[in-house]
Amino acid sequence: RQSLKIGLVPADGIGKEVIPAARRAIEALGSDIPKPEFHDLVAGFEHFTRSGTALPEETVRALREDCDAALFGAVSSPSRKVTGYTSPIVALRKELDLYANIRPVVSVSADPRGKPSIDMVVVRENTECLYVKQETMIHTETGREARATRLITERASRRIGKMAFEIALKRPRKLVTIIHKSNVLSVTDGLFRETVRGVPKLPEVAGRYDNVTIAEQIVDSAVYRLFREPEIYDVMVAPNLYGDILSDAAAALVGSLGLVPSINAGDHFVMGEPVHGSAPDIEGKGIANPIAAIRSAALMLRHLGYEKGADRVDNAVNSVLREGQFATPDLGGKSTTAEVLDAILKRI
Amino acid sequence: RQSLKIGLVPADGIGKEVIPAARRAIEALGSDIPKPEFHDLVAGFEHFTRSGTALPEETVRALREDCDAALFGAVSSPSRKVTGYTSPIVALRKELDLYANIRPVVSVSADPRGKPSIDMVVVRENTECLYVKQETMIHTETGREARATRLITERASRRIGKMAFEIALKRPRKLVTIIHKSNVLSVTDGLFRETVRGVPKLPEVAGRYDNVTIAEQIVDSAVYRLFREPEIYDVMVAPNLYGDILSDAAAALVGSLGLVPSINAGDHFVMGEPVHGSAPDIEGKGIANPIAAIRSAALMLRHLGYEKGADRVDNAVNSVLREGQFATPDLGGKSTTAEVLDAILKRI
Ligand SMILES: CC(C)[C@H](C(=O)O)[C@@H](O)C(=O)O
Ligand SMILES: CC(C)[C@H](C(=O)O)[C@@H](O)C(=O)O
Repeated sequence: RQSLKIGLVPADGIGKEVIPAARRAIEALGSDIPKPEFHDLVAGFEHFTRSGTALPEETVRALREDCDAALFGAVSSPSRKVTGYTSPIVALRKELDLYANIRPVVSVSADPRGKPSIDMVVVRENTECLYVKQETMIHTETGREARATRLITERASRRIGKMAFEIALKRPRKLVTIIHKSNVLSVTDGLFRETVRGVPKLPEVAGRYDNVTIAEQIVDSAVYRLFREPEIYDVMVAPNLYGDILSDAAAALVGSLGLVPSINAGDHFVMGEPVHGSAPDIEGKGIANPIAAIRSAALMLRHLGYEKGADRVDNAVNSVLREGQFATPDLGGKSTTAEVLDAILKRI
Repeated sequence: RQSLKIGLVPADGIGKEVIPAARRAIEALGSDIPKPEFHDLVAGFEHFTRSGTALPEETVRALREDCDAALFGAVSSPSRKVTGYTSPIVALRKELDLYANIRPVVSVSADPRGKPSIDMVVVRENTECLYVKQETMIHTETGREARATRLITERASRRIGKMAFEIALKRPRKLVTIIHKSNVLSVTDGLFRETVRGVPKLPEVAGRYDNVTIAEQIVDSAVYRLFREPEIYDVMVAPNLYGDILSDAAAALVGSLGLVPSINAGDHFVMGEPVHGSAPDIEGKGIANPIAAIRSAALMLRHLGYEKGADRVDNAVNSVLREGQFATPDLGGKSTTAEVLDAILKRI
């Protein structure tokens, strides 16, 4: 690659504050990555209220045709039902077939050579489950009845399972924990569980995952144990909604959602996205934590194969966290987004 | 009532150890409650493996016709798909129309007059959502596809909403937080949210809930905030599956699932049930924490109007927890179920 074409979709709220910060971190890498070329793209609830569409076709087209990767900010949720509005991030994941939402949750230990006390990856299926958004409403004598379809396919479960095993392979513990609720959803979650369990037995991966251990947890108990014994987890693989909840729960363990990055990955595209939301309460105050977005940029670069660039960003972030001098309010500090960003840029 | 007819369904694993303990606590109340009459009833996965049915019709009939209330233990989940098995607790909740699963999560402060640091109630809808268990499987060219229906009705949302408002009325803070994911599930969770919000405006409750404040949280963020700022919650009302996950998450805050009770309540019947599972890892060792089951008995008595009996049980449990001399291993202690039970019985 001569240049790295990155779509930037800040979307709503603090997305517009943290995505520019992530861009600055990428720019600071100089020749460790191909020259970055940024494309500013629009989406989000605010854009919807202005234009009637939350995800313009042009944004999807530009990501698909003009970009190698992307960074997405955050979307605001309407505070009441808004006809015609549909979440642009959910739509983008589907449009670009970004089937894996990979969310590493890692604490930074005081000693740079020390082991982090929290170190896990949530691998969330990103295209189906209740997120297919097939919902219906009927009127009956006793009132309205709404129904939603939860879809779990063998194909999607298999590819997310493979992704989880691949990630586990690169980690010291090599443990994959399948999260499900097959004691109630024996057909859908039964299929998910059985398919993920079956991945190591597929002919095309023969022997490859022999050193990976498989465990499983029922989702409610998984969340309980996440708080009581986080050390039991290494790689968690989960259907979409459980993964959504689990990754927020895991974020609580490392002190702030403002620290937790993710990528939405498909076979041909990757989109970084901080796990936090648009945080309307602090929007415009300049105090949003830019770390989740910056780490998402690093994760995106790593996924593209630019390990060295990714390491430089991650090391800079970890130094700033360890030194503790610059921290935004979510971490109990008083720094601004700009101050934290500057501290990181100096260390890149 | 001349006597209080209580069905006992220990079911699986440690259910068989904690339900007898709860029975002893009820028996210790003497004349504070009508003379208890216990009916031993069977259900569970172990019963299924022996007999082919997890919930014998006779158990349902006895609960319905011969009992005023019941205590349920816990059910084991099959470790692989078992044809014909269906969770007896889910079935019982539906059969007896026990539409509200009420789960108070309260910490015990060192000072008996002190305020507990954790004090919330999860009010979980107990009959629908994905628990309707309408699942299908089809075979396609790309593999199997499973679908489940998530049902949310106005009727069930309204009655669980009313229950939440009633519970809030009796609490100092009078705050109801609606848990939903209507940013993705705008129709089903949209209906839940809108219906619960509408409860105070219903003509039949005119003015009754004027002092109750309504808040809301999206489920993923709700779990995150539960860990970061548990004090923001008072009464949480949630569709079935979110309530399941949230109550386990809340249990982690008070130190052990072994402490958290619940009742499954309908308009005509109430069934106490510890929130913990059958815990096959400690089954038969005599070290299961009986407190969740004993507190479930107290909650059941309170629901039936026997406040004094309920208070005596709760106070005895709280004294034992405060004194700290007798604690089962889940709380870091070395006591047996019998020792904790004895300590509680002495204080009733
Ligand atoms: C904003 C919302 C649609 C989204 C989701 O549920 O996936 C968010 O919670 C996330 O985790 O990225
Ligand atoms: C055992 C299982 C079916 C049950 C549920 O999901 O309701 C349990 O987790 C609970 O919370 O009572």
